[in-house]
Amino acid sequence: MKKAVVLLSGGLDSTTCLSVAIKDGYEAYPLSFDYSQRHKKELDCARKISEYYNIKNHKVIKIDNVGGSALTDMAIDVPEYKGTSDIPVTYVPARNIMFLSYAAGYAEVVGAEAIYIGVNAIDYSGYPDCRPEFISAFQEMIRVGTKSGVEGNPLKIITPLLKLSKAEIIKLANDSKAPLELTTSCYKGGDKACGICDSCILRLKGFAEAGLKDPIEYQNR
Amino acid sequence: MKKAVVLLSGGLDSTTCLSVAIKDGYEAYPLSFDYSQRHKKELDCARKISEYYNIKNHKVIKIDNVGGSALTDMAIDVPEYKGTSDIPVTYVPARNIMFLSYAAGYAEVVGAEAIYIGVNAIDYSGYPDCRPEFISAFQEMIRVGTKSGVEGNPLKIITPLLKLSKAEIIKLANDSKAPLELTTSCYKGGDKACGICDSCILRLKGFAEAGLKDPIEYQNR
Repeated sequence: MKKAVVLLSGGLDSTTCLSVAIKDGYEAYPLSFDYSQRHKKELDCARKISEYYNIKNHKVIKIDNVGGSALTDMAIDVPEYKGTSDIPVTYVPARNIMFLSYAAGYAEVVGAEAIYIGVNAIDYSGYPDCRPEFISAFQEMIRVGTKSGVEGNPLKIITPLLKLSKAEIIKLANDSKAPLELTTSCYKGGDKACGICDSCILRLKGFAEAGLKDPIEYQNR
Repeated sequence: MKKAVVLLSGGLDSTTCLSVAIKDGYEAYPLSFDYSQRHKKELDCARKISEYYNIKNHKVIKIDNVGGSALTDMAIDVPEYKGTSDIPVTYVPARNIMFLSYAAGYAEVVGAEAIYIGVNAIDYSGYPDCRPEFISAFQEMIRVGTKSGVEGNPLKIITPLLKLSKAEIIKLANDSKAPLELTTSCYKGGDKACGICDSCILRLKGFAEAGLKDPIEYQNR
């Protein structure tokens, strides 16, 4: 069975991505990162989602160091994104670059031929590392920089959500039976989603536009 | 003063690289990785080399997780490289890709304009991620994938050793007064270098060809 590493944060997008990878016929190797995120709920969700799919090989990479890792130093704690065309303050330098680099190494180790990542150029267009030209450049870089690439079988980076709106992502998730009830999107990380942060608003708007009901619980609805 | 992140393993090549960055007029931000290497001597050396240059901001990134990180899973414990044209078994999937990704994030955080890396395409030509075409592709990827790149000031990746022989690297180190007495190259990581492993042999051969004396101590000489 062909294998794919799937970057899985526990959110709606990456979970949809995982469901697509499975539908595409891949044995999935979900990969999550523990880097002192604001809350650990994401990792709990990623674990439950992997269990839902009966996946045994969910891997959590812990990145840490005394005095702050590069990643945590970089995590700027200002989650509100106002939808301007500038790069938002929530931009974390090189985050997707690091995540994809790990995924590339892990893919070579387990013999995977693809990496799935739920980047989206529509609803988060301010992030340079969510754009199609970044994905193409990363693909080319691993083609020349890895053993599999040099040997003529470069890892494929698959981005099923790249050009979809949030509503289209939710429809895709629904069609591929992704367990959206197990996902988290709220910036605050409570038991129930707050319903008022930027991320909750974007999610709820997507469900409304898709004509579907969000299966997770909200505090303020 | 312009800033540069310098990948510093504590070996001869990265230390030469650091000396070149300083000679080039950069304030250096050395970056080392602690990922369950075979021995910690490298990190001790990196620390002493940074102290030698009176650098306060040497950063060590610890990468670890329960059950093995991607990097340690990947570190195949077979250090002998026979100089064939194939990719050697010591190839660690995506290692330089990960190191450079961290360096790119760190460079953006501290406002550095360059990254120095001591890759070399001559004496280690089997590694895909030590080749000029890999460096070019990585450069292009961070140009489109980072804030500084999108804003028209892409990070420069500087590779002063890329096309030098070991003897030429040693001469360059000598000219730029790199503290080679503080470096380590031996795979075994003892107090004195073994003098017989592949890495020691390559180093001693380089010194002989350069007509210089290696300042470190050897067990078997």
